[in-house]
Amino acid sequence: MDEMAVQGEMLIGAGARAGTAASFHAFDPTLQTVLEPSFAGGTLADVDQACALAAAAFDPFRATGPEARAAFLEAIAVNLEGTAEAIVSRAMAETGLPEVRIRGELGRTTGQLRLFARVVRDGSYLDARIDHALPERTPPRADIRLVHQPLGPVVVFGASNFPLAFSVAGGDTASAFAAGCPVIVKAHHAHPGTSELAGRAIQQAVADCGLPEGTFALLFGSGTEIGVALVADPRVQGVGFTGSFAGGTALMKVAQQRAQPIPVYAEMSSINPVVLLPGALAERGAAIGAAFAGALTLGAGQFCTNPGLVLALEGSDTAAFVAGAKGAIAEMKPATMLTGGIHNAYRLGVDALVANPRTTHVIAGDPGEGLVSQPNLFAVTAEDLMADHSLTAEVFGASSVLVRCKDAAQLKTVIDELEGQLTAAIHVAASDLDLVRDLLPHLERRAGRVLFNGFGTGVEVCDAMVHGGPYPSTSDGRSTSVGSLAIARWLRPVCFQDAPDALLPPTLQDANPWKVPRRVNGVRG
Amino acid sequence: MDEMAVQGEMLIGAGARAGTAASFHAFDPTLQTVLEPSFAGGTLADVDQACALAAAAFDPFRATGPEARAAFLEAIAVNLEGTAEAIVSRAMAETGLPEVRIRGELGRTTGQLRLFARVVRDGSYLDARIDHALPERTPPRADIRLVHQPLGPVVVFGASNFPLAFSVAGGDTASAFAAGCPVIVKAHHAHPGTSELAGRAIQQAVADCGLPEGTFALLFGSGTEIGVALVADPRVQGVGFTGSFAGGTALMKVAQQRAQPIPVYAEMSSINPVVLLPGALAERGAAIGAAFAGALTLGAGQFCTNPGLVLALEGSDTAAFVAGAKGAIAEMKPATMLTGGIHNAYRLGVDALVANPRTTHVIAGDPGEGLVSQPNLFAVTAEDLMADHSLTAEVFGASSVLVRCKDAAQLKTVIDELEGQLTAAIHVAASDLDLVRDLLPHLERRAGRVLFNGFGTGVEVCDAMVHGGPYPSTSDGRSTSVGSLAIARWLRPVCFQDAPDALLPPTLQDANPWKVPRRVNGVRG
Repeated sequence: MDEMAVQGEMLIGAGARAGTAASFHAFDPTLQTVLEPSFAGGTLADVDQACALAAAAFDPFRATGPEARAAFLEAIAVNLEGTAEAIVSRAMAETGLPEVRIRGELGRTTGQLRLFARVVRDGSYLDARIDHALPERTPPRADIRLVHQPLGPVVVFGASNFPLAFSVAGGDTASAFAAGCPVIVKAHHAHPGTSELAGRAIQQAVADCGLPEGTFALLFGSGTEIGVALVADPRVQGVGFTGSFAGGTALMKVAQQRAQPIPVYAEMSSINPVVLLPGALAERGAAIGAAFAGALTLGAGQFCTNPGLVLALEGSDTAAFVAGAKGAIAEMKPATMLTGGIHNAYRLGVDALVANPRTTHVIAGDPGEGLVSQPNLFAVTAEDLMADHSLTAEVFGASSVLVRCKDAAQLKTVIDELEGQLTAAIHVAASDLDLVRDLLPHLERRAGRVLFNGFGTGVEVCDAMVHGGPYPSTSDGRSTSVGSLAIARWLRPVCFQDAPDALLPPTLQDANPWKVPRRVNGVRG
Repeated sequence: MDEMAVQGEMLIGAGARAGTAASFHAFDPTLQTVLEPSFAGGTLADVDQACALAAAAFDPFRATGPEARAAFLEAIAVNLEGTAEAIVSRAMAETGLPEVRIRGELGRTTGQLRLFARVVRDGSYLDARIDHALPERTPPRADIRLVHQPLGPVVVFGASNFPLAFSVAGGDTASAFAAGCPVIVKAHHAHPGTSELAGRAIQQAVADCGLPEGTFALLFGSGTEIGVALVADPRVQGVGFTGSFAGGTALMKVAQQRAQPIPVYAEMSSINPVVLLPGALAERGAAIGAAFAGALTLGAGQFCTNPGLVLALEGSDTAAFVAGAKGAIAEMKPATMLTGGIHNAYRLGVDALVANPRTTHVIAGDPGEGLVSQPNLFAVTAEDLMADHSLTAEVFGASSVLVRCKDAAQLKTVIDELEGQLTAAIHVAASDLDLVRDLLPHLERRAGRVLFNGFGTGVEVCDAMVHGGPYPSTSDGRSTSVGSLAIARWLRPVCFQDAPDALLPPTLQDANPWKVPRRVNGVRG
């Protein structure tokens, strides 16, 4: 695919056009300059057109076989690679994230698309089941066959903090396409140019693969009107969102108030507790502290899996941990944050922690200049943490709170009182094993991913990943947004009883033309 | 298990006691007499105790291996069989349903429990996945392992219309136990004695299997207070409900307004459209009509899958269908309905259809005496149906509406405008195949089960069954309440990263002590 320039256009069906609602510009947070061209939001007529095209595309798109659908996902990846230089430079300018990060994220994004191509070819996700008729039984059993079918057109909201991997061509879009759902993306207003470039890569793949034009659309809108209208549209059957608690819960409410409520998969807020056990601190406290500092400041602290809470026991060697973190942070230059709004919210959050009489400010990194994220670590007692819920609120950026617990019982109470989390990490040594066994069920009930001797900031894209967790880390802890299991969020089971073979979906026909794994009369195939 | 007498007691933990709130009696709808003993509702203190015990039971219960959990499910089945005579006679008295139906339902209930024992032993439902560490890769990959874990304690609401299969020891309870969730049942007030007997069979199995006493509880309450308190309790993590649209949506609202919203699987209302194509009507219209009459009146019309809407094309032989149905209905005695309230609602629904100027009353069966369900068939045009939404409202009982559509396009429009349904049936002949191909995607989008040349009233308990469907037939069309896939509603994925082998759940340990199927490094095991 040829390199493309940003035109400031939305993509609806096979066409591209500038919006006609309020206009806005992208902003370079490093240089603090406005970026050309201007963009303009869509109207309710644009929403209607995108939804009508998506509804018309649904049946033909879902009828595609595994090869056609996998080829489409791979074509998107190839097109993204074809326009990599334009995407990388535009994404760097729009987000302030460094080149190595953006190139890595592009690789992850194309890797996700190819993972879902593999998932589609594999066919296990369909969970196809056949129970043959038993005409001799009393009462006779009908022929009954089940397969998972796509929900319908879905809306994906791009996230601010991963302009590629959780945005236009990101995980939700890839998993929804893999499931057979047309996708309408509402671009994040902070990286509209990156969104347009990624959107054009998808639009081109739709055309090259001969898919219906409504398979994909990209809309802009600087306020909430377009997003709310998309979620409220009766043709839309599911929503993927990564962003704030306020934004996610607002969309949940819209979805629940529809005549037909629909699922919303919102990834919202998480402080990702890290438990440091005494043996681990005694053995390698300073090294854990240094690794923590790296995780805390990764991407200017703008990861959903950022370690915002550290739990340790009084009397254990937290001093070595703090010293290790302090030493590492002293070497760091503060990194640019994504937007002025995010930077401002971070400053307000940190100022509130500084002003809170319960906290001690144990590490304050280089404050830097401009829209940067100064690394910060505060310390509180467990009593104070539990007495003041503001201390467990997410501060999006490189700030964390170290909590000293009197004993293991209090540590468990703190964990039990936490809200649902994406991740929970625990650092252990051989001498900590009894304590871990005791804590583990508590951590597991609170998080979608439990990790040992590390930090949750890296989210591997693989079969076994869960990037999800109990509310409010996500709206629906039964689902993951990363990894191959993410396809399940866009599916529902449908069963066919006594259907003539020729009228069954190919996945359930006797000849199994697509060679999908099936459970037949109780036996796994 | 010895035959037991009904004591009028709730079951909380290992104990049994009479409630202390408002008292009520069961009622025999056939004899129209009050049944002894009296029952009394629980209090908020009972709710608190049941939830506390369930929360305490969760970790030890979910730690049970497949053999222990399967043995528990099988013990419940054996205990139900041991008290079968008492259960059957009490259920007949409390519901007015005939002996053959109740005995069949008991067999189905024990069959469901044994199906889930097989599901637990099989282990496929865990969808266990292992991605081994790749330390040489850049960047290195951690060891990542995923398994599905139970949500936590769940609340199950017994349904009125299946006093065994969708009640205390019914499908939701069986699937939740199989998943590893403690269950608190709110008994349906219409069959408290049956509920107590089934509950005692479970309580005895909990004791015999050495499980924590909070694994199961049974509460009574004649109003909404107990149910609402259970759904609102923060220790409860999921809800199963079968009943009215008003009841289901009220519980959804309670669940959504919690500090932590939880999933509600509510099966609510469905009119289960039946499409009669011209070839089928020409070939066997009278026979289809007779079979329809049987499905319509099964269980006094009190099936969630009752055929409440029949769609045919003008000019096709609907006369033969009506004549066949009329002849069959003329031979029938009307059957007793479950409760006076249900009977009254049915009469009001039928009276409204009679009074509606758009309808023709084409079949009126024997009105009978007492709390019986007179079979009724009304006819309307498609225009009238679409103009008056009251005509597609569920009338719970043996009443149905025949809709004549001008042409195939109008038939599709009628289907597209229907709300979500549990089932959609289509009767076809060889000459109808082109028309079926055209209609099938429309039916599939509207229903969880699409069936050919039959009626949806029979719901087979097997791997491939889907008893669920788009809203408002259920609250969550991604789930089924019948069949082995029902276990998925009580699970969430949890992933472990770099966990020491000894700290992993047995399902994910290298040695795979429970021999569960696993996908390892992308390869299905």
